[in-house]
Amino acid sequence: MLAGKFIVFEGIDGAGKTTQMQLLAEFLHNNDIPVLCTREPGGTQIGGRLREVLLDRSCHNMSHRTEAFLYAADRAQHVAEIVRPALNSGVTVLCDRFIYSTVAYQGWGRGMEIALLQQINELATDGLLPDAVVLLDIPVLVGLRRVLKHRSPDRLEVEQQAFFQRVREGYLEQAARLPKIFRVLRGDGAVEMVHRNILKTLSDL
Amino acid sequence: MLAGKFIVFEGIDGAGKTTQMQLLAEFLHNNDIPVLCTREPGGTQIGGRLREVLLDRSCHNMSHRTEAFLYAADRAQHVAEIVRPALNSGVTVLCDRFIYSTVAYQGWGRGMEIALLQQINELATDGLLPDAVVLLDIPVLVGLRRVLKHRSPDRLEVEQQAFFQRVREGYLEQAARLPKIFRVLRGDGAVEMVHRNILKTLSDL
Repeated sequence: MLAGKFIVFEGIDGAGKTTQMQLLAEFLHNNDIPVLCTREPGGTQIGGRLREVLLDRSCHNMSHRTEAFLYAADRAQHVAEIVRPALNSGVTVLCDRFIYSTVAYQGWGRGMEIALLQQINELATDGLLPDAVVLLDIPVLVGLRRVLKHRSPDRLEVEQQAFFQRVREGYLEQAARLPKIFRVLRGDGAVEMVHRNILKTLSDL
Repeated sequence: MLAGKFIVFEGIDGAGKTTQMQLLAEFLHNNDIPVLCTREPGGTQIGGRLREVLLDRSCHNMSHRTEAFLYAADRAQHVAEIVRPALNSGVTVLCDRFIYSTVAYQGWGRGMEIALLQQINELATDGLLPDAVVLLDIPVLVGLRRVLKHRSPDRLEVEQQAFFQRVREGYLEQAARLPKIFRVLRGDGAVEMVHRNILKTLSDL
């Protein structure tokens, strides 16, 4: 067993992950629990270099497997350099996105083989699993409006709804399969209410 | 079944892989067999970008897993972009190093977990295996002298001998485990004699 708790926040864009992670971090800090906030992809210098390659337009012919391995390389470095050392030293780690994002976005959203992604995920993390996953679930249109700062989506953005609908379903399916670690909460309530629900659902930790 | 034959050359540095691959390519070309010569790591533009990250001194704290995933990303792109399309179109592909180098160098040479490397290799290649592996086996010191252009190795180079000895053993162990595809030949004979032995051992293809 690792000394610190590892809590992951998941959900589609606009679900409120970043805001709620920050509020939880403040709560823990005020209760003298040492806490580290981090995110994927990234966090490490090597991860930054890999993101450059992933985003480079000249790499448009990148195969799906190549892309999956690059995300895995980023994750392996993040886990080895940041997450595990913090947990080992007793720090609680809050992480914005983890292996479940890969399955939801690359698998459910873009149709990559889910068994392949799960194998790569397990190798990348060396089997590290979180103590809890807070899944902030919201209707796709609500998330989209939040990201767009309350303006209505345009035609292309409306087309993206089907993609995000699949991603949302991918999250809910993982939650159903892993009921011991997933805590599914509605993310479309008032910020303070969602925060109280998160504290309640994590009280056993 | 793919239309073209996939032939891999393996061995420690100085074993003569590049020379012999070139001679075999000329032989095939002269016999009207379309042939593509390629190598790992690299060959693709994306692979070039990844090699920059792998060689960057500022990335000295790269974890072993991260490194393994970057080589896998390079290999996945190489297989998808170059090797498979060529084989599908009936071209014979000669490749300087493949998955067996990863097991020999990272596994036997540097002590990484071999089962992990094999899993990653299989995912990277999507299960593609060569029709034959030509393993050019030479004593470590002979290879080292060839690389050094016949001068004697200095102190540091002598220390590396133990490393290359483990790599050589790693190759021979894989050949013993996969007798159907491995063809082990002595690489320390005259160039023309080794070439004739290669033609003989591949005659069934």
